[in-house]
Amino acid sequence: MILHPMKLVTIICEALARSHVTALLDEVGAHGYTLFSVEGVGAQGSRVADIEEFANIQIEVVLTSEPALQLMTRLERDFFSRFAMIAYLSDIQVIRSQKF
Amino acid sequence: MILHPMKLVTIICEALARSHVTALLDEVGAHGYTLFSVEGVGAQGSRVADIEEFANIQIEVVLTSEPALQLMTRLERDFFSRFAMIAYLSDIQVIRSQKF
Amino acid sequence: MILHPMKLVTIICEALARSHVTALLDEVGAHGYTLFSVEGVGAQGSRVADIEEFANIQIEVVLTSEPALQLMTRLERDFFSRFAMIAYLSDIQVIRSQKF
Repeated sequence: MILHPMKLVTIICEALARSHVTALLDEVGAHGYTLFSVEGVGAQGSRVADIEEFANIQIEVVLTSEPALQLMTRLERDFFSRFAMIAYLSDIQVIRSQKF
Repeated sequence: MILHPMKLVTIICEALARSHVTALLDEVGAHGYTLFSVEGVGAQGSRVADIEEFANIQIEVVLTSEPALQLMTRLERDFFSRFAMIAYLSDIQVIRSQKF
Repeated sequence: MILHPMKLVTIICEALARSHVTALLDEVGAHGYTLFSVEGVGAQGSRVADIEEFANIQIEVVLTSEPALQLMTRLERDFFSRFAMIAYLSDIQVIRSQKF
């Protein structure tokens, strides 16, 4: 088994940002992502997961370094002023890199 | 874009511990967190997410090093003997540190 | 408080693989795990979380290095050709290692 060093980008944002974020994921070349609803309490107040339009979502995407940094840069530049959003990067090791 | 090294604290606990944990998050200066239901199977047996009072929750909070360690210390000292709970720390890189 | 370096293994797979994966978790000596539904969009197309049999699940398990690598090896060898699945490893620090 070979482990490939990759980056996990985690994006937590208001559900309204969803289509904008997923379009950007396509743009930077992400081959897949997971998405789930979360309750989020933050600087902009509490958001409850079961009210669809006020829900927060957590999106997780596995990328190599370059597109991961490109994604982070674009999130900050294009979305941070428009949507409630945080994003962070972590180091992971993936079994098969060709899927991403 | 500047990436700030931060800590992600992940807490998995019985839903009954929720208000205790979130009060502690306030106390250590967390500016926000996310929370979602999980099915947990562990040393204390299986807990099913759709039975509210037996559900487990996963709480994720981004902090700088010092409050992250303070949170871990308090979780162990005050809650580990009272609630089914695990907690772990990971290194992340965040776009904007001023939110946390 | 003592922090123990451990591995977090994250497995994202079709819900159909669930019992196979959890049996393998037992086999490698995992003492517990969490599981939640996610929407997954990947190479094999979009899967929607609320259609039970097409849902994706995300399983997270904390292990020491050796069983974590053993788990990754077995996932690749036994399941990757049969199920839609990705798996990755990350470094975490856990308060109490004896639980895992």
